[in-house]
Amino acid sequence: MNKTRLEAFSDGVFAIIITIMVLELKIPKGTGWEAVKVLLPTLYCYVLSFVFVAIYWINHHHLMHTAKSVTAGMMWANMGLLFCLSLVPFATGWMGENCFERVAVATYGALLITCGLAYTILSSTIQRTHTEDTPLTDAIRKTKPKQYTSVVLYSLSIPMALYVSPLIAELLFVAVAVLWIIPSKEIERALREK
Amino acid sequence: MNKTRLEAFSDGVFAIIITIMVLELKIPKGTGWEAVKVLLPTLYCYVLSFVFVAIYWINHHHLMHTAKSVTAGMMWANMGLLFCLSLVPFATGWMGENCFERVAVATYGALLITCGLAYTILSSTIQRTHTEDTPLTDAIRKTKPKQYTSVVLYSLSIPMALYVSPLIAELLFVAVAVLWIIPSKEIERALREK
Amino acid sequence: MNKTRLEAFSDGVFAIIITIMVLELKIPKGTGWEAVKVLLPTLYCYVLSFVFVAIYWINHHHLMHTAKSVTAGMMWANMGLLFCLSLVPFATGWMGENCFERVAVATYGALLITCGLAYTILSSTIQRTHTEDTPLTDAIRKTKPKQYTSVVLYSLSIPMALYVSPLIAELLFVAVAVLWIIPSKEIERALREK
Amino acid sequence: MNKTRLEAFSDGVFAIIITIMVLELKIPKGTGWEAVKVLLPTLYCYVLSFVFVAIYWINHHHLMHTAKSVTAGMMWANMGLLFCLSLVPFATGWMGENCFERVAVATYGALLITCGLAYTILSSTIQRTHTEDTPLTDAIRKTKPKQYTSVVLYSLSIPMALYVSPLIAELLFVAVAVLWIIPSKEIERALREK
Repeated sequence: MNKTRLEAFSDGVFAIIITIMVLELKIPKGTGWEAVKVLLPTLYCYVLSFVFVAIYWINHHHLMHTAKSVTAGMMWANMGLLFCLSLVPFATGWMGENCFERVAVATYGALLITCGLAYTILSSTIQRTHTEDTPLTDAIRKTKPKQYTSVVLYSLSIPMALYVSPLIAELLFVAVAVLWIIPSKEIERALREK
Repeated sequence: MNKTRLEAFSDGVFAIIITIMVLELKIPKGTGWEAVKVLLPTLYCYVLSFVFVAIYWINHHHLMHTAKSVTAGMMWANMGLLFCLSLVPFATGWMGENCFERVAVATYGALLITCGLAYTILSSTIQRTHTEDTPLTDAIRKTKPKQYTSVVLYSLSIPMALYVSPLIAELLFVAVAVLWIIPSKEIERALREK
Repeated sequence: MNKTRLEAFSDGVFAIIITIMVLELKIPKGTGWEAVKVLLPTLYCYVLSFVFVAIYWINHHHLMHTAKSVTAGMMWANMGLLFCLSLVPFATGWMGENCFERVAVATYGALLITCGLAYTILSSTIQRTHTEDTPLTDAIRKTKPKQYTSVVLYSLSIPMALYVSPLIAELLFVAVAVLWIIPSKEIERALREK
Repeated sequence: MNKTRLEAFSDGVFAIIITIMVLELKIPKGTGWEAVKVLLPTLYCYVLSFVFVAIYWINHHHLMHTAKSVTAGMMWANMGLLFCLSLVPFATGWMGENCFERVAVATYGALLITCGLAYTILSSTIQRTHTEDTPLTDAIRKTKPKQYTSVVLYSLSIPMALYVSPLIAELLFVAVAVLWIIPSKEIERALREK
């Protein structure tokens, strides 16, 4: 079946993206606490991006469950999402190496918005193939407010990073991550009932 | 079944090739617009190559659908295609870092021809295992003109890059990509009917 | 089915982690025995970490066998384990490049404890979804003493590395690895009976 | 089923090993023919190693077909083979960068012997689980002479590289590769009859 290979390919790309980021953690020269201290911002960025990519993987997983067939549109929408996500290691490394400099943090925020949009496009492309509503499609539709909130918070993060403080932007990123780590009870139930 | 593992291995290689290219996007030193400006050609090359590898993956996917059994010839033809594609990140990085220098662009064009030939060899190897025609094999056969057009445009890109302007070569690459992004209605229908 | 994709994604991450470590083996400049001698500590670290990741993969494999359904908690517990393991190549490279310096060896030990805890969390999350005991769940429960012994030996390795000798810490790491390479006869039997 | 995951993990590792080697192809500084000329030995090494890993993948594929169940011994024998193969990118890069220096070529030969031994160990571990002979197990057993010839040629390559000429060692490597590219008619038939 078609869908299996699309999932296998996507899983491969997700797995590589999430693991490649650790390559940004460059091995420090010495072993004193100074060497470790330099690592800390990069390590924080890595954890943050790991969580974001993990959230996308979990949601991708739920979304694909509801796909009835694989269309060319769906394949390209999926490629679009994977492309945006494949830029995450780069943006993560840039933000980490520059110790949360304003432009780097704003770029990271902009990338997260782009990923969010790519996900929304994939989501609507898949929904267009639905002929009937299932508990799972309903449950996914109910995550829309969460999606909107995320995009609003990401959008706020850019001016915050540029004109107020990169720290507030980071707090907004963490807030979005927490919002999505809390599992949707409806999706859980819909998956169980399946 | 044999075919599953061939697809799984190929998907793995495709996923790695498409994601490894982002490693060419070296993290710039500063965060000013000058740093970003240097990145732009590499980013364009990455997008272009991402689209090309994605096109190959989608077509590989359709092609494998029509394979009845896995022969040694098919395995080696597949390895040949994967080998050519695995050189794409290298050619992409070379073209990006040298800002579309003539020789680098022509090399990229030559690699795309080689990939096209490797795909054609895989395609005929698989067709030789067919005992009867299905709507999907018919639909794939009808993409032949597209394949020929691509090879002609790629072949044009080499003298264009070397003797006229690398820009025209780039436009030819984009033209081929657009040609393949437009999905084949016949393949879509054949996959749906299956 | 849900579980297949969770396994496929995890397998992808495991495969990348285990192979990425070899990238730490930097190609030496010359080809004399001096060049090779410098490589030896890194090579040893690579073998050790390869064995540890392999042990985790095998146990992950058995554990997933017993999972009835995939819950959000299980997904995040799995992500936690993969995150900890994805830091192994970094810690391995750090330990290798610094020729078993005290702090690097202690950090490696601390990471192994973290991985062990992440595995224990995943293990209990999966056990909570069990409704009845099978020979396999019983056999896995009987590996608990091994888990405790490992954590105790890892914990010992940190003060040993810092205050006594990194060599003793390394011996403790090897001891834990040997403990897990010896296959559990009960798991073997339970898998056969399945 | 157990075997699927072992194959999926192995396929992942094979895919990464075969693709990671291209990272050794460092992007040359300029674009003149001098820059390209420096690349040629590395490119040759890459092609050679690609073919070797591909041969192992194809044979691994046939071998796994005959496995009835997955034992702990088989898992570790498989890990041993993957470990040896994961050193191939390193040995390839070392040989390429040093322009076929004697010690590097001999090391490459020694690694190929080790991979061959690891494969033989996996092969006998799997054969021990067989309860009856099938056409495929027979066909695989008949590749034994090929295995012995390979090990003899590899063993010859080491003194040849060290004391006569690295070129002769390279010719021996190519000879072994050609020996395995020619598909075994018996395996082909056995797979078709299955």
